[in-house]
Amino acid sequence: MPVNLSAPDPSSLHPVPGVRIGVAMAGIRKANRRDLVVFELVAGSSVAAVFTQNRFCAAPVQLSRRHLMDTAGAARALLINTGNANAGTGSDGLARARRSCAALAGLMGLQPEQVLPFSTGVIMETLPVERIEAGLPAALSALQASAWGEAALGIMTTDTLPKAASRQVQIGAYTITVTGISKGAGMIRPNMATMLGFMATDAAISPAALQALVKDAADQSFNRISIDGDTSTNDAFVLVSSQQAGNVPIQSLASADGQLLRAAVVAVAQHLAQAIVRDGEGATKFITVQVQGGRDEAECRLAAYAIAHSPLVKTAFFASDPNLGRILAAVGYAGILDLDQGLIDLHLDDVHVVTQGGRHPQYREEDGKRVMQQSEIKVCVDLHRGSAQSTVWTCDLSHDYVSINADYRS
Amino acid sequence: MPVNLSAPDPSSLHPVPGVRIGVAMAGIRKANRRDLVVFELVAGSSVAAVFTQNRFCAAPVQLSRRHLMDTAGAARALLINTGNANAGTGSDGLARARRSCAALAGLMGLQPEQVLPFSTGVIMETLPVERIEAGLPAALSALQASAWGEAALGIMTTDTLPKAASRQVQIGAYTITVTGISKGAGMIRPNMATMLGFMATDAAISPAALQALVKDAADQSFNRISIDGDTSTNDAFVLVSSQQAGNVPIQSLASADGQLLRAAVVAVAQHLAQAIVRDGEGATKFITVQVQGGRDEAECRLAAYAIAHSPLVKTAFFASDPNLGRILAAVGYAGILDLDQGLIDLHLDDVHVVTQGGRHPQYREEDGKRVMQQSEIKVCVDLHRGSAQSTVWTCDLSHDYVSINADYRS
Repeated sequence: MPVNLSAPDPSSLHPVPGVRIGVAMAGIRKANRRDLVVFELVAGSSVAAVFTQNRFCAAPVQLSRRHLMDTAGAARALLINTGNANAGTGSDGLARARRSCAALAGLMGLQPEQVLPFSTGVIMETLPVERIEAGLPAALSALQASAWGEAALGIMTTDTLPKAASRQVQIGAYTITVTGISKGAGMIRPNMATMLGFMATDAAISPAALQALVKDAADQSFNRISIDGDTSTNDAFVLVSSQQAGNVPIQSLASADGQLLRAAVVAVAQHLAQAIVRDGEGATKFITVQVQGGRDEAECRLAAYAIAHSPLVKTAFFASDPNLGRILAAVGYAGILDLDQGLIDLHLDDVHVVTQGGRHPQYREEDGKRVMQQSEIKVCVDLHRGSAQSTVWTCDLSHDYVSINADYRS
Repeated sequence: MPVNLSAPDPSSLHPVPGVRIGVAMAGIRKANRRDLVVFELVAGSSVAAVFTQNRFCAAPVQLSRRHLMDTAGAARALLINTGNANAGTGSDGLARARRSCAALAGLMGLQPEQVLPFSTGVIMETLPVERIEAGLPAALSALQASAWGEAALGIMTTDTLPKAASRQVQIGAYTITVTGISKGAGMIRPNMATMLGFMATDAAISPAALQALVKDAADQSFNRISIDGDTSTNDAFVLVSSQQAGNVPIQSLASADGQLLRAAVVAVAQHLAQAIVRDGEGATKFITVQVQGGRDEAECRLAAYAIAHSPLVKTAFFASDPNLGRILAAVGYAGILDLDQGLIDLHLDDVHVVTQGGRHPQYREEDGKRVMQQSEIKVCVDLHRGSAQSTVWTCDLSHDYVSINADYRS
């Protein structure tokens, strides 16, 4: 059961002028399942993306990177399949990904380099590219601007709910739209499942500013539920600008217009990233981990991730057991080498649990237990050695996580 | 159920001349449970140890380090309690650990610095030092040389079986004994439970060589199931020499005698470390992960640990599901930045699964499944970029792991 998350109301998802989406059932792994999504981008669109840092990145990731470079971001179509990740498939996998791009390019009158491929699903199995080819005409004939809700359904794997969000913002005389979808469902660390995010805006923006924006938005959202370099073979986060809104093109995120667009993009990206955690495999609780009082943000992130990744901490949250020393232990092994444990404070929501590295004299276990039983919990650690802070989002570790991952392919 | 592990036969545990052990029930957390163990070391003994790298290390760890330094390793007693880790307890915890050492020193006619304290159990709760004090006379009156089996029982927490091993080796005219005990039961990463190991030998050896030996033995055993710096608040591995054997004192591990002693110590330490994995919380399979063909051992270890720590890999082993792409993904995010995925080979026992980064043409899923169903599995990854190798031992991740850690304190 996802934690305080429901399916998006399709009518809340504003179409993005210049972007049409088609969804089809291609039978890639299972029949009668939406598993093929095509984004058609109007001529003049710009695309920027960030990808997994995994050295064993999938064939589609290698190819999307290359195509973005070859076209300087002037892509015209996204081709997404579920059911097969086309990862760990060697040179044959690369050839099959290429063939899928060529097939879509042929049908749309594009060059293959103008198509960006994305795959998610089981690793190390041969991509049934002929099924993708056979499914493309249906996807193309379904193209429409209002299919964001369908697309959110079309990219799901073990997700229990589709994930989508949309915002509109005024920039001068123009109403700018930002709409996006995501999928995750691997627990929290994206080494556990592919995380995909696709967002589009009609705001006019230079390619350089768009690239800065996608990186910045990822750092404020998807990278708050991830570790650099600790990502799946297929992760990707894509930001499209169709350039259709009519605004004076944004050259810098620091400009007034740039800040307005940035805020809307970050808000949608955070919603999409948090939705992945709320729908984490087996998740029963949504946990915000904030580490403050660090010398720099990097050490705060180290500590926050150590807490967020500890199976001992996560099982304690699942059990509503305030075995909170496990949080201290995680801070201790986070890698802050000159950490002084005697300075550390720990709050669980409003409950002061630890002061100066030891149990707070007024702390009562029943207070910790009360907070642990909530579905939304905030952990706040203060290192008391500086003024930097960092926040990450995670969920608990339950029996269902083991069941889902033991049975994923069956 | 532990994986191919049974309780040691007490008669196989050779006493170590100069070392006596007493075990008592002090009611530290629960009544009628062995929870207090005292080692009495003959005058002239040398002690060397390695401790957790966790910055949030427990009070007894801080104190044992200091006492070892103050006495240059000439400790005369080890004082071990279960039921309470005395970690996350601030300055009060340190005072209580000191008081327990003083109590034992008083009863034994020693200086407090000659006592090394060790604790394991729940974190962040006050150490009931008065119960330890009350239990000490019973432990001392029980002192005997043949109590290694009792001691193995006395240091257990969530372990399902006691862990002990013993070897004898001829050094010149002298029979040297090496005997040890361990406890673990947290899964594999010692961030998940305290790992304790206590070993003793009667071999005469210089303090410097003893310190080198304990570090070397840890690297060949307990550190093969751990990450540097990713350890619990209380981990400790202690090697005592009672210096009673009569051999010419060993000055260097490179000498012929040194190599004989080293081999025996490493064999016992490996047995104790592997026993911890075999009795890992919820473990159903014992997995040896070997990474070879690396440029250096460090990168092989990185990759081996990435595999061994991946919850996705571990749940797949639990389910006997040959979803082996998860192993490739773990290698990919291990942090080897210039890794060429196109070179990688993967074997599961004798089954060749991956060649040149893709599925081996002769690989059949039923062969993978057959190996996955075994209780002992060897994963071998070849990076094909050098001649270094590294091996770590781990277990699978099961429903029982979640149950045990959700219920640990109840």
